[in-house]
Parts: sequence; structure tokens; C-alpha cells
Amino acid sequence: MKTVYFDNAATTQVRDEVINTITDVIKNNFGNPSSTHSFGRSSKVLVEQSRKTIAKHLHATASEIVFTSGGTEADNFAIQCSVKHLGVTHIITSRLEHHAVLHTVEELERNGRVRISYVNVNSNGEIDYNHLESLLHDDEKALVSLMLVNNEIGNILDVKRVGDLCKTHGALFHCDAVQFVGHFKIDLQDVHVDFLAASAHKFHGPKGVGFAYVRKNSGLKALLFGGEQERGLRAGTEAVHNIAAMETAIQVAYDALDEERQYITELKSYFIVEITKAIPGVTFNGLSGDLDKSTYTLVNVCLPFTADQGQILLFQLDLKGIACSKGSACQSGSLKGSHVLSEILSEDDMKKPSIRFSFSIYNTKAEVDYVISVLKAFNPN
Amino acid sequence: MKTVYFDNAATTQVRDEVINTITDVIKNNFGNPSSTHSFGRSSKVLVEQSRKTIAKHLHATASEIVFTSGGTEADNFAIQCSVKHLGVTHIITSRLEHHAVLHTVEELERNGRVRISYVNVNSNGEIDYNHLESLLHDDEKALVSLMLVNNEIGNILDVKRVGDLCKTHGALFHCDAVQFVGHFKIDLQDVHVDFLAASAHKFHGPKGVGFAYVRKNSGLKALLFGGEQERGLRAGTEAVHNIAAMETAIQVAYDALDEERQYITELKSYFIVEITKAIPGVTFNGLSGDLDKSTYTLVNVCLPFTADQGQILLFQLDLKGIACSKGSACQSGSLKGSHVLSEILSEDDMKKPSIRFSFSIYNTKAEVDYVISVLKAFNPN
Repeated sequence: MKTVYFDNAATTQVRDEVINTITDVIKNNFGNPSSTHSFGRSSKVLVEQSRKTIAKHLHATASEIVFTSGGTEADNFAIQCSVKHLGVTHIITSRLEHHAVLHTVEELERNGRVRISYVNVNSNGEIDYNHLESLLHDDEKALVSLMLVNNEIGNILDVKRVGDLCKTHGALFHCDAVQFVGHFKIDLQDVHVDFLAASAHKFHGPKGVGFAYVRKNSGLKALLFGGEQERGLRAGTEAVHNIAAMETAIQVAYDALDEERQYITELKSYFIVEITKAIPGVTFNGLSGDLDKSTYTLVNVCLPFTADQGQILLFQLDLKGIACSKGSACQSGSLKGSHVLSEILSEDDMKKPSIRFSFSIYNTKAEVDYVISVLKAFNPN
Repeated sequence: MKTVYFDNAATTQVRDEVINTITDVIKNNFGNPSSTHSFGRSSKVLVEQSRKTIAKHLHATASEIVFTSGGTEADNFAIQCSVKHLGVTHIITSRLEHHAVLHTVEELERNGRVRISYVNVNSNGEIDYNHLESLLHDDEKALVSLMLVNNEIGNILDVKRVGDLCKTHGALFHCDAVQFVGHFKIDLQDVHVDFLAASAHKFHGPKGVGFAYVRKNSGLKALLFGGEQERGLRAGTEAVHNIAAMETAIQVAYDALDEERQYITELKSYFIVEITKAIPGVTFNGLSGDLDKSTYTLVNVCLPFTADQGQILLFQLDLKGIACSKGSACQSGSLKGSHVLSEILSEDDMKKPSIRFSFSIYNTKAEVDYVISVLKAFNPN
């Protein structure tokens, strides 16, 4: 069957170079990096080399990179441990964050550990930076957690501005950068971020590995206790093959960034033009229709159909081999709709089906044509 | 250079079948198991199939298996969450546990969440079961955490006895089974265990993946919050390639168990005979010299040398390509010696060098001969 994978915000196809690294390392470097003999040392070299490469691309130092099992663990680590170890009693976030952030802060609130303030957003999902600043006028130790690129609507945060606000007001700043790393550049010498979470499988790396950036001298301590791995910040034998593969993934991603960004931007741009022609009345959720203010990797469309038609359409798309998403993949297990869209859309628009299409270098214009033709053929209006 | 890998308790060589699974899955099943489209569903099938296979080998039900990033996370999950969610205020453990258990319970104690009782052990590292029972006569909600096979001295716990004691006294029972799973069989319908932690890389699987067994209706909640993966018990996109590879690893391990156990037991037995001849005065730490009461996968020898000679010997072994371990690999990052040996050995014996040699099916008698010849040539006595 013909298949089109337009769900790259959920996860990405693994690059051939990354597969080669995994296969090579798991065959030839099975040593435990904590072992002091030759088998251990050669694994340790791979892990530390990966740490250096990742740090280099973010303009961080190697000791600021802590390997984790993925973005969710990195988010939990930064947030839970800021509260446990750094005296944070006030968390400022938005209702548009990923559940790895929202459910973590909600749990901390339930346990009476913190109070939460949600920064205002407008109907495009844009952060009200003035409101954010007003929330920061506070004597409590605060942590701001805002994502760099929204995983559903693609909005890009003004991270420099938020970082400066946090610095001015003595607040800690955590970024879920899961949709950002490998797709955009950042200079952590210039941008003030305390903690950042990333996940390899969002940039053509393997699943089950990611990292937290933890600013030097932050004082953060471990969430998982045990061995002395990651200088005591994250116990557990390192997943050497996955970590080395993440290095390959980030290296290739940043080496090819400009070229691939241009290619994917053209796909998204083409998709926007074609769907607008094919489905009169289609609108774009958040800022995802704005090429300058949203990530080039995704578009989130609100279709002028009924909810019932939407259900049939999703079924049809699946039958036609088209992979796309109603909300984030992480919500698919739950019965609720998108918490992001329900926050920003009108009641009327929430009744219409919204679909996220997300792109990668493995997609083509011909695939866009195919998807648009299926949507057009379906259009009941 | 000739190399001999006798550090299989630290980590193991990955089986070819496991490498094939990893390579196949990462190439052909990159979908996010939480996605509802065909790419997601085929990944979901792999994850659920793996869960069923693992459950089958432990005589558990699939819903009792929770995938984690490894043994350390599984230990932390069971212990931290028993305290957070199940009202545990008293933890009973031993000073011979892995740091993933000890450092976790120490952290909980530091935070004033629990008090810890350490069960007595004798100079062979044997648990005093009567003392354990006396500690259980208590009104507090208790969690017993004892490992099934000690990672340094190989002692095997009487898990049935401890499980029955816990059941009788209303205590929860957590087992670090990292050195056990894939090497020994267990029937969780017969043995009363509430939580169990396992790690794939200890049975020729990949690093960065493991699982927790969580007894049905235990009431345990998540340590990592976010998506609805693992029925809400462990958020984060599943490492599909690693999980499928863990299935292959456990399947092959249990299919070949009797044959491989016999082969490795013979190696260990041969090693014991030969080292006893080569180094008069050698002793075996814990029960590791007793083939019936310790795991067939390792032996921990105390050599009748001085500490200085021990340092030179370790250096020599490394130069000769022989991989073995002073303590557990997880301690290598720290400057302290083995906390297990310092608990059970006399002051005099602690001054002598102790080395753990641990075996797998990839080892041979010729390798034992080589290692013994190096030890014999070194013997300064």
C-alpha cells in the first residue's frame, strides 16, 4: 500500500547514518562505560564524544549535557528536581505545554509542593509576555517552563526575551525543546536558559534517548539514584548505542540544517497553498500558517467539516495510508481531545476537525499532492 | 590484542539475534506506538508482543510489566513511588544491595520520608531471615527491598521465604532482579513479589531498557509524568527497537537456559578448581565459591596479596586484555571500594585485593586457562 508519513512531530524515520551507528556500536562496543577496563573505556569514549558534540551544537559545555531516556524524563528531571532541590515553590507555565510538563507540575501542585500560574495566551496561542513579566514580580523562588516550539501548533517562543525576563527577576527557566533541537539553532551562551529537554527521535535519532541541558552550577541533583553515572546527576548504565546514535543524528541534522530547512519549508509552503485552494474555508491553528512565526516542520489545519465528517475523514486518511495526527501522539492513549486547541479555539472551531500534518526531508511534493487530492475528494462541501 | 571478557555482571555482549531485531525494528518500525495510524499501530504491536513474552516467562500477566529505561529506573520507580503513593514509611533492606536501591532509600531517609532498617547479614553475606521477620513485627507500612542475586558476591536470596514473610506481615516486597532475570526462572504466581526490577543488558540485550514488574492492583503510580504510555505508569515514547530487542534477548535466554546454565556452571566450576590450585590461600567472597548457593555467572575471589600488589595486578590484567572488576561497574566512577565487601569481610581481608570474574556463554575454558596463567605468573608468594 502507498503510505505517506506526515506525522514527523510524533516521531521521525531514523536516518541511515544513525542506523549504521547503532548497528556498529551495539556489535563492537558492548562494554559498560563505568567499567575501568578496555571494554569499558571504549564505551566511555563514545559517550563522552557524544556529549561534546551535542554541547558544541548548543554552544554549551560538555558537563552541562545529561543523558536521559528521552524528553519526558528530561522534563521531569528539571521540573521535579528544581522543586525538590532548588527551593522552587512557584511554577509559571502555559496551558499549551506538552503533558510531560503539565502533568508533572500538576502532580507537584497536588502534593502541595508548588503553586502554578498559567501565563495568558491569545487565540493564536501566542504568549502574553507582559503577563509573564507581571507573574514574575514575586518573592517566591519561581521556575518558568515554556516550550521552544509548540508540538501541536508549531508556535516559536521568543526564548531570548523569556530568558532575559527570568534572569532579571531571578527565576529559573526550563525549556521543553523537543520539537526545536535538530531543527533550529540555539546559542546557550547568548540565550539564558537554565534547563532544556531534548529527544533524539524527533530529529531522526533513536527512541529511548534524549538529554537535559543543565546550566553549570545550577545545583540540580538527581531524580534517579544509584551509580555515579552522569556525575551523579542520572544513575543507570548509559545506553551507549543510543547515545552514540543521537550524536550522529544531531551532527547530521545540524550539518544539513540550512539545506533541509529550505526543502521542508518549501513543502510546508506548498501544502498551505494547495490545501487553501482545495478546501475553501480551511484555517490554520495557532501560528502554524505563518511561515515566519511557526516551525517549518508542521501545520495544523482546522477543516470546515462537521465532527462526524472529521471522524470519517481520519478513518479515510488512514485507509489511504496517510499518517497524520489529531493532536500529539502522546495524547492518543487518552480519550480527551487536544488540550492545546481547546485552549485557543472558539467553541465552534473546536467542533470542526483539526489535523496536524508534520513534515521531514523524507517527504515529497508528490506526497503533498496525494494528501491534498484525498482531502479534496473527501470535501463534503 | 587478545581479550578476555570476564565482566558479564557489569554488562554482556549483545546476542546476534538481538542485534538483528534492533536493526530490523529501527529500519522498519519507526512509528510512535501512541500514534493511531498504521505506522503507530505496527510499533504498538511490537511493544505489546514484547510485554506478553516477558510476562509469560515470569508467569505474570502482560499488564504487570512496565517498560523502563533500565534496572535503575525500575528500582527507583518501585521504591520512590511506594513511599509517595502507597504510604510506606519504613524500608527494610540490606547493606549489600545495589546502589540503585541503597542510594534511593538513603535519599528518602534524608528527606524524612522513611526510616530504614538494615537486616543483619553474616560474613558470607547471608541474610538473617529471623532478624528480617523481627523487623517486620511493626505497625508501620513497610517495604522490603532485597536483591534476588547479589551483583558482587552472587548470593541467591530465598525469595519464596522472604515473599511469604512479607505477605504474612502485610509488607510490600521489592526485588532488584537485575542479575537474576534471563539467568534463572521464577514463577510469580508462586512467589509473592510486589515489584521487581530487571535490565536487558545483563542478559545479552541492549542497554537503556529494562522493566518493572508491578503486581496487579498494587496502586503504584508514575514516577515520570506526561503521556499515557504504559497505562499512565511511565510516560515517554517507548524505545520500540530496544523493547523488541529485550523480547528477543529474554526469549533466547529462557529457550537456551538449561544448556547455557550448564555450560557456564562448568566454566565457573573449572575456574574455582584452577584458581585454587594456582593461588594457594585464595578465598571466595560471599557464597560465590558455593555452586549451589550462588549464581553460576560469577565468582568473587579474595587474593592473598597486599593492596599494592593488588593494584599492580589489576593493571596487569588490563594490559593482558582481561576484563574483570574490583566491585560493581556502577561503583567505578566513585573512589570508594566495594560497599558489599566492606560489610562482610574482616579488616585483614579488606586489605587484600578482591576481584569479581563473571562469565557468559561467550567465554571458554581456554580463556579461563589464560586468566589463571596470568594470575599464576603474577603470584608474588
